[in-house]
Amino acid sequence: MTAAWPDVYRADCPSRVILEHVTSRWGVLVLIALLDRSYRFSELRRHIGGVSEKMLAQTLQALERDGFVHRAAQPVIPPRVDYSLTPLGVEAATHVRSITEWVESKVPDVQDARLQYDAVRT
Amino acid sequence: MTAAWPDVYRADCPSRVILEHVTSRWGVLVLIALLDRSYRFSELRRHIGGVSEKMLAQTLQALERDGFVHRAAQPVIPPRVDYSLTPLGVEAATHVRSITEWVESKVPDVQDARLQYDAVRT
Repeated sequence: MTAAWPDVYRADCPSRVILEHVTSRWGVLVLIALLDRSYRFSELRRHIGGVSEKMLAQTLQALERDGFVHRAAQPVIPPRVDYSLTPLGVEAATHVRSITEWVESKVPDVQDARLQYDAVRT
Repeated sequence: MTAAWPDVYRADCPSRVILEHVTSRWGVLVLIALLDRSYRFSELRRHIGGVSEKMLAQTLQALERDGFVHRAAQPVIPPRVDYSLTPLGVEAATHVRSITEWVESKVPDVQDARLQYDAVRT
C-alpha cells in the first residue's frame, strides 16, 4: 500500500470492484429500491423491470457480501426472506439515488444532444 | 408517455441507457478524470488503468453523443484531439465523483464485511 491508495484509477485497486457492485446496472436499481423500504426477492424482481432471477440473486449476494444489504430469513412457513439496507448501504444508495434522479431529470437534454450529434454525422 | 415517465425502474425507459453510460466501468472513470482537466486520448488511456483503446474510444463516443463530453480536433500537425466536459458533463461527473470518493473511503469497511460474510459461510 502507498499513500495514494486507494486509487480507483488503478486497475488493481480494491475500490474498483466495490465501485462496480454499487454502479452495476442492477446494483444501482437494487440499492435505490431498498432505500425506500425492505423487499422480498419476488417483490424486488417485479419492481426492477428486466432483471432476471439469476442476475438479481447475484447482485443481492454481492451487495450482501460487501456489507450493503442485509438478508433476513424469517422463521415462517412458507419461508420468507426480506432484504434491506445496512447503514453502509444507506450511504451507498443515497449517492446512487442522486445520480438516478439527475439522469431522470436530464433525459430531454441528452435526447437533444443525440439528435444534434447524429444530424452532423449522417 | 405517462406522468410516471421517466422511470429508471422500467426496462424500456430511455433513462436506463443514459444511466448505463454514466455509471459504466469506464464511463465513471472518464467522467471523473475530465472533471480535473481536459485530456488527449493517449493521456486518458494512460491515466485510466486497464482500459483498452477500443473500450476508451467507445466510451468517449457514447459520452460525446449524450452531450457529456466535448471532442475538439485541434488544427495542428500532427493531429491532436482534446476531450473535455460540457456543462451537462460537469454535472454528471460531479455526481459520479461523489460516489467514487465515497467508495474509496469505505474500502476497509467493505473488506471487513466480506471477511465476516465469508467466515460464516466456510
